[in-house]
Amino acid sequence: MTKHFERELDVLKRDILTMGIMVEESLTQALRALATRDAELAEQVIRADEWIDARENKIDEECLKLLALYQPAASDLRFITAVMKINGDLERMADETVNIAERAAFLAGQPKLAVDLPFDEMQERVRKMVKECLDALVNRDAALARSVCAADDAVDDLNRRNYSTLLDVMRKDPAGIERGVMLLSVSRFLERIADLATNVSEDVVYFVEGEIIRHHGLHDPTTPPPSWQATRLER
Amino acid sequence: MTKHFERELDVLKRDILTMGIMVEESLTQALRALATRDAELAEQVIRADEWIDARENKIDEECLKLLALYQPAASDLRFITAVMKINGDLERMADETVNIAERAAFLAGQPKLAVDLPFDEMQERVRKMVKECLDALVNRDAALARSVCAADDAVDDLNRRNYSTLLDVMRKDPAGIERGVMLLSVSRFLERIADLATNVSEDVVYFVEGEIIRHHGLHDPTTPPPSWQATRLER
Repeated sequence: MTKHFERELDVLKRDILTMGIMVEESLTQALRALATRDAELAEQVIRADEWIDARENKIDEECLKLLALYQPAASDLRFITAVMKINGDLERMADETVNIAERAAFLAGQPKLAVDLPFDEMQERVRKMVKECLDALVNRDAALARSVCAADDAVDDLNRRNYSTLLDVMRKDPAGIERGVMLLSVSRFLERIADLATNVSEDVVYFVEGEIIRHHGLHDPTTPPPSWQATRLER
Repeated sequence: MTKHFERELDVLKRDILTMGIMVEESLTQALRALATRDAELAEQVIRADEWIDARENKIDEECLKLLALYQPAASDLRFITAVMKINGDLERMADETVNIAERAAFLAGQPKLAVDLPFDEMQERVRKMVKECLDALVNRDAALARSVCAADDAVDDLNRRNYSTLLDVMRKDPAGIERGVMLLSVSRFLERIADLATNVSEDVVYFVEGEIIRHHGLHDPTTPPPSWQATRLER
């Protein structure tokens, strides 16, 4: 491995970490906008997404350049392809954050719905997952990555709890249905960001251990599932 | 390019097309389960997802193998990295399809909500987008890919229409709130599959033309957005 290649790999690591910090920052602002009913802050989050998109493109280009120039093998090849995927996942997290900010902007102009939801706790858990999945990537730490996957259950539970709380609120006060639907969405977007952090962690484990932990109990992919007897699988 | 490499590229093309057909088939079945209130068919769709996951892993492995063994350059390199991304997007479409099937399984055991939603039209549009984005990939057809991106707007419109229809239904009949929320979700999952097909198409254009059409009006990615003056961007 040349010194030059090593240096470019370091730049790539720093860039993907920065991308993660941008996502965390954006999420924190979107939820602050929701909590403080600050439509202007919500709009700022929406506008700031262009920077995250630009960063995604830059990282993609870097990866392609490294593959084309140095034709890395084994572990470096797996690292670079992992970064390409993880980069896309981070950009999707940012998109979910924009979705949250859009709801926050709408809700800021509406009467407050009388409901107490654990968005602070969800945010703290999700933020930690995002940070740790990237730390696991750059430190090649499969154990940390696995712990991020395990942390996803608590976020799923909080989301389910919000679902039943909000259905009750909407049933009791049909005038609050639209705001209830918006808050349901916010909860689901947070849960999706946690899912994406879980995807990233799975990719990290695969990169570190060369093992696919997604999709246990795999079937022979060359045959269709039994329920598709009549399916023509080749075009 | 060796004969062997060419043959393996053909296998990869066939495999990604098959993955797309599996997603189309799964989506068709999930929406049939919803329309005919067939919980057993919905469960079949959920179980069949394991085959799609297995196919995703197989394609990922093929891509890594091709990169490692043949160290392709230029257009072949871009094709293979595009397939890696698109493969992930197809698997996400399958996950959204499972989400639809889960709602279908729940709704099959509930009284039917009196509402008429254009799910058939949405499905037909989405199915066409999924098919065409992959045709565009294997035929290196950027014009077709761009037409898929353009087709996304109609799906977004249908989703917005469903949103306001369902809010009205829920306001008039609060006993239907949970079913209304489920149908809102189905509509949004369909819209998300269309978004994913749009992502695929953008990656195809990039692969064919070497041009990033996602994220127009890019900013300098090395500076944070103006609203983040106090943000520490490097860890």
